[in-house]
Amino acid sequence: MAKAPVLTPQADDFPRWYQDLINKAELADNGPVRGTMVIRPYGYGLWERMQAEMDARIKETGTQNAYFPLLIPESYLTREADHVEGFAPELAVVTHGGGKELEEPAVVRPTSEMIINDYFSKWVQSYRDLPLLINQWANVVRWELRPRLFLRTTEFLWQEGHTAHATYEDAREFASHIHRRVYEDFMVNVLAMDVVPGRKTVRERFAGAINTLTLEGMMGDGKALQMATSHELGQNFAKAFNTTYLSKDGTQELVWQTSWGSTTRMIGALVMMHGDDSGLRVPPRLAQIQAVVLAIKGDEAGLAKVRELGDRLRAAGVRVQVDDRVDTPFGRRAVDWELKGVPVRIEIGPRDLENGTAMLARRIPGGKEAVSLDTLVERLPGLLEEDQALLLTQSRERRLSRTAEVSTIEEAVEAAATGWARIPWAVLGAQGEARLAEQGVTVRCLVAEDGSVPQAEDAPGTVAVVARAY
Amino acid sequence: MAKAPVLTPQADDFPRWYQDLINKAELADNGPVRGTMVIRPYGYGLWERMQAEMDARIKETGTQNAYFPLLIPESYLTREADHVEGFAPELAVVTHGGGKELEEPAVVRPTSEMIINDYFSKWVQSYRDLPLLINQWANVVRWELRPRLFLRTTEFLWQEGHTAHATYEDAREFASHIHRRVYEDFMVNVLAMDVVPGRKTVRERFAGAINTLTLEGMMGDGKALQMATSHELGQNFAKAFNTTYLSKDGTQELVWQTSWGSTTRMIGALVMMHGDDSGLRVPPRLAQIQAVVLAIKGDEAGLAKVRELGDRLRAAGVRVQVDDRVDTPFGRRAVDWELKGVPVRIEIGPRDLENGTAMLARRIPGGKEAVSLDTLVERLPGLLEEDQALLLTQSRERRLSRTAEVSTIEEAVEAAATGWARIPWAVLGAQGEARLAEQGVTVRCLVAEDGSVPQAEDAPGTVAVVARAY
Repeated sequence: MAKAPVLTPQADDFPRWYQDLINKAELADNGPVRGTMVIRPYGYGLWERMQAEMDARIKETGTQNAYFPLLIPESYLTREADHVEGFAPELAVVTHGGGKELEEPAVVRPTSEMIINDYFSKWVQSYRDLPLLINQWANVVRWELRPRLFLRTTEFLWQEGHTAHATYEDAREFASHIHRRVYEDFMVNVLAMDVVPGRKTVRERFAGAINTLTLEGMMGDGKALQMATSHELGQNFAKAFNTTYLSKDGTQELVWQTSWGSTTRMIGALVMMHGDDSGLRVPPRLAQIQAVVLAIKGDEAGLAKVRELGDRLRAAGVRVQVDDRVDTPFGRRAVDWELKGVPVRIEIGPRDLENGTAMLARRIPGGKEAVSLDTLVERLPGLLEEDQALLLTQSRERRLSRTAEVSTIEEAVEAAATGWARIPWAVLGAQGEARLAEQGVTVRCLVAEDGSVPQAEDAPGTVAVVARAY
Repeated sequence: MAKAPVLTPQADDFPRWYQDLINKAELADNGPVRGTMVIRPYGYGLWERMQAEMDARIKETGTQNAYFPLLIPESYLTREADHVEGFAPELAVVTHGGGKELEEPAVVRPTSEMIINDYFSKWVQSYRDLPLLINQWANVVRWELRPRLFLRTTEFLWQEGHTAHATYEDAREFASHIHRRVYEDFMVNVLAMDVVPGRKTVRERFAGAINTLTLEGMMGDGKALQMATSHELGQNFAKAFNTTYLSKDGTQELVWQTSWGSTTRMIGALVMMHGDDSGLRVPPRLAQIQAVVLAIKGDEAGLAKVRELGDRLRAAGVRVQVDDRVDTPFGRRAVDWELKGVPVRIEIGPRDLENGTAMLARRIPGGKEAVSLDTLVERLPGLLEEDQALLLTQSRERRLSRTAEVSTIEEAVEAAATGWARIPWAVLGAQGEARLAEQGVTVRCLVAEDGSVPQAEDAPGTVAVVARAY
């Protein structure tokens, strides 16, 4: 009789597979308030690594971190009309504080445009204060009716960048820089994710923006996930908050702004992009544990040698965990590390130690081989880079093989049943977009034929990438 | 006529000096909802450095980071009687979410004992799962009626550790390890703060704890500030949440727990411990900017050389910022860096560049000297370590010179007008403590005569350190 699978197979029920994996790899649990989430240590470790890699790239742009309050007076929300309309249905409202009903209720931030702009209008006085480049790492709350762990949660963690610039061009260039050089670079080179950079249609834009840039990834089931967005806000918030600066010419001018965000949703994307029926597969450059040295069994003297191997690998620059819990069955531990997607397992028993060998199990390509301990230390960093490249290739190949070039709305809907479709925007248009939406298919982004981001929605040759989406 | 001082002098009005400094050094602003705070980039940079140093020490103990929800069902609060009584008056309550009134209101976490214990009770099954060592970096909300930036704010940032252990002894030892090896080590060796480790009296204990360990610092005005606390929770929460484990002997046992926290209040402590009438003085090991290279004026060629010096110092391991904003008056920039407390300023004009010299201004001991650029790079790391040591010495000397040994309550009250008093606990007792409290003086902690932490309140030779406190 075949062994029962550890997870519901992807092919049987992809959403169920996803839930199983999140649960069994100990990434997260549901919180007690509907839609909230407990991020468990292994899941949070992924987030910490994402934060470290993103934060370095964000600081590289000259952006500084700051922190703005969680609670925002309800009246602030109403200052920018499109913005409030976009967020009103999702708000959590604090009506009581310190045992009393509040004179003015406060909302828990769904995003911080309003409160940050209030301070920008105080801090920006002269052209010397520009550009003002601020980022914050924070939690936000958007009431979620159909929650799913990491993908849609009532509370999530994110970074939100907010900037003010002297000119339209400078703001536009900065939004684009974040889009390509921060977000795309991180996703491709750290997360090993094939992503498509593009611009959103008017229908799909952020509430209050004049342009939204996005990165879209294809998940294992062929659906799309929006990975991060960067917005040009134009002068909408500057007008609402009267954020002006004294120009070199002595005139008062409104600033031009951007905002941009990426969230714990990226953990869900990681699962659905790289996971398989045995669990998660974590790209080595992201992994908080790149290799686990697994003692099969052994006495104290043997375990000391196993730990010593861990030290040698660490000295070679590999992030290593030693698993010497020999009173827990080896098979159970091996399955657990496989579920957690640690790229490499080095399994060592007493006989291996005598022979100076180990079994090397590679999670990403799969397979096991006997290796000599002497050469392993030297080989491992190269193997991890191979694995990193393989994940990226696999995700790219999946997207290419599951994307259809189509020329009618009917074909687009059909293609979206199993993957993505590309259709000329001149053929589709806003009306076609509305018809697609009725069938649950959305324009994920607009791209140029050469793969660049169109400078305008009506730029010649613009192609719409359409799909079902998370 | 004397120049107007940059800040209200400490001796004139210490609270006003504090507000002035926070404002002019651009550490923080008041938020729009009463008691909340905007942490500005320079203030947040201090917090990021604190986080990095603390996080490394916390992980060193085997503790892992995780994240629990912001929103907690109101009913959870009532499970541990002392705990709810302690926090009820400070709660912020969410009554509406997603446009509807909630069936059960949710509180914004004032601390996470309740929600974390709910999950501990699920995660802990067997002795193999213990100790369970979890920390989270998060925001919490406690409605504050008399807010003061960093010291008492309605929302603040902190880390909160929560652990579960198999035995009383193990929990006790862990709480002590965090107290001395994580918190005290960080405060003494990074913040350059003289702090007194001790235990709280029953009256001053955390709501729900069986013992609270504390670190108390003396501020520039002689008042005390509680810097961080580590609690033994006994089995109070384990009973409330039925958190049990299967022991090696096959019996079900309740776990023993600890919790411990430190907050953005430490930034306020940094200001009041090391600040002077010219601004903040940041300990070099903490400083995100240890040295600023300040171009007095100059053309592009000159500025390029100034930036080159910055690179050389960076290569020597110093955290450097180059200030080449020569279109802003030099004097204004110098005062600004002084306010921000950057340990070292290296001021360079065109003539200095020709001569291969610079003016070296040291913020911590004060004073300026002409130096050769060639030797500066080599000398600087050593000078920074001297400054680090000097701050610690100064804070220790202040505490020693302003602490009186007393033997009556009247003398204690008198000493507390300008500093601290030490009085035998056997003389003071709980009744004396209540009488002191009527005069606004509290027992900050109990210490042993040899400076160690008493194992019990009634241990022979226990001394009470009493003071007015923030």
